[in-house]
Amino acid sequence: MTASGAYTSAPQTAADKTPVAIICGGGAFPGAVADAVARRGRPVHLFLLRGFADRALERYPHEWVKLGSAAKYLGANRKHGVREVVLIGSAVRPRLSQIGFDWKSLLLLPRIAKLFLGGDNNLLSGIGKIFEEHGLKLRGAHEVAPELLMPHGLVSNIRPTAQEQEDIDIGSKLLRAIDGFDVGQAVVVASRRVIAIEGAEGTAGLLARVAEMRRSGRLKLREREGVLVKLPKPSQDRRIDLPAIGTDTIMQAQEAGLSGIAVEGGGSLVIDAQKFVEAADMTGLFVIALPASAQTPA
Amino acid sequence: MTASGAYTSAPQTAADKTPVAIICGGGAFPGAVADAVARRGRPVHLFLLRGFADRALERYPHEWVKLGSAAKYLGANRKHGVREVVLIGSAVRPRLSQIGFDWKSLLLLPRIAKLFLGGDNNLLSGIGKIFEEHGLKLRGAHEVAPELLMPHGLVSNIRPTAQEQEDIDIGSKLLRAIDGFDVGQAVVVASRRVIAIEGAEGTAGLLARVAEMRRSGRLKLREREGVLVKLPKPSQDRRIDLPAIGTDTIMQAQEAGLSGIAVEGGGSLVIDAQKFVEAADMTGLFVIALPASAQTPA
Repeated sequence: MTASGAYTSAPQTAADKTPVAIICGGGAFPGAVADAVARRGRPVHLFLLRGFADRALERYPHEWVKLGSAAKYLGANRKHGVREVVLIGSAVRPRLSQIGFDWKSLLLLPRIAKLFLGGDNNLLSGIGKIFEEHGLKLRGAHEVAPELLMPHGLVSNIRPTAQEQEDIDIGSKLLRAIDGFDVGQAVVVASRRVIAIEGAEGTAGLLARVAEMRRSGRLKLREREGVLVKLPKPSQDRRIDLPAIGTDTIMQAQEAGLSGIAVEGGGSLVIDAQKFVEAADMTGLFVIALPASAQTPA
Repeated sequence: MTASGAYTSAPQTAADKTPVAIICGGGAFPGAVADAVARRGRPVHLFLLRGFADRALERYPHEWVKLGSAAKYLGANRKHGVREVVLIGSAVRPRLSQIGFDWKSLLLLPRIAKLFLGGDNNLLSGIGKIFEEHGLKLRGAHEVAPELLMPHGLVSNIRPTAQEQEDIDIGSKLLRAIDGFDVGQAVVVASRRVIAIEGAEGTAGLLARVAEMRRSGRLKLREREGVLVKLPKPSQDRRIDLPAIGTDTIMQAQEAGLSGIAVEGGGSLVIDAQKFVEAADMTGLFVIALPASAQTPA
């Protein structure tokens, strides 16, 4: 696991001109990471996950792969001089039979199968270990592209009220309480009541559920009541599973009738923090980046 | 809080012929409780919550009330000789402004308002205290109608596998971990992964979400994979918030593609346990009633 704080400066990438391999899932983050790395003058080699990655990423040197093409990723160091690999973007966790392992990767299957028996944390950190044994370093997106990291102390013009601060605190505590379980980086709390906890449905699904409960009358709240708290899990490997947030989250939170969003400063990925806060201000939501330390005391 | 075990025998109701007031929300449980109490030869007086209670309950002596008619419930002891009150059935938690307090109840408003600022646990146990100060005893449905309590050791013909037992264990632990938060009596776990945690959407909403994630391909599981674990919160007042389960839960779990359901023996309400297990057997799901002690070690 990355030492706390180490990922904010990431000096190892400053003058480094070796290519970075990026295994790209769905969504906008793979492109943002590739762009940021390229802007830093480092070549990239993309492994585009079939069924998930955006076709627009073909603008970079790439190859389309199946999730199970582990041998291809591992061969990248020999073929392309790659030493660092980044895993980024969304990918639905497949059933083992659907992964489409290639023949070479089947040699790794017993280990990968064992990883699949654990939760996601387990799976991802296990994959990291396999990379490292093959001479590749698993890097967090924020390590090769620190500009994507949510800045500390980021806030919108609108600030949370004392009640909203209390709700943020309750949400943070709940997320800490379930840290040991491989689930849930986000929660919605309204006037001290926990409304919804994120599971496999993801943050968009969580917010859609809150919106639906309001529409149906199952949830009776004031206009603009409730906060989304979305934080990295304390025990999670930040190289792989930093929560990502964007202007779409702002729109979804607005649809859900919420009053604001709390994230962790230096603990979330955002494509454009400035635009993110501007979108919040435009919709009248608050956004607050909590200090990581604010989460620590129980 | 009722001492563990005391609620299974409920000897105080055996020869008692005083009327029981039942404040009735929605669903089938209010009728089942009224029927069971009446079968025991005790008269009932129903307070039917407008907008929630079933019209068929008018077969018993009753009056239609708004949620806020607290003074009416409290006057029941003088008017009808009532000494015990049961709160049963579903009612969406309203906004304070929608409760429709009558003038007399407004005298209690400052206290009730304060209760509303806490979570549901807080609200309900506070209401219990107000009853007791007015000479009424708040009773659990299982105390006046013990036949509605899920029997210990109840099992279907189909038994959980070792993997499913492990999932049940993970679900139980997760529910214990969030006990202090006023949310979630149920969770779905599949092959060690926590899929969904219940919030304000309720168990039917939780199961519909799992079904939807399977349909959309967001969740890739084997046929009949995943268990629903639904348990009372250890710190919760069992007189008010024992989880209720029924044949509808079986159907919803089947729709969600689950393999079974774990509840707590002596810790859930069920209208007809025999029918419940028969429905499970018919659909091929397992049902297991865990001993309460199995939940206790962390």
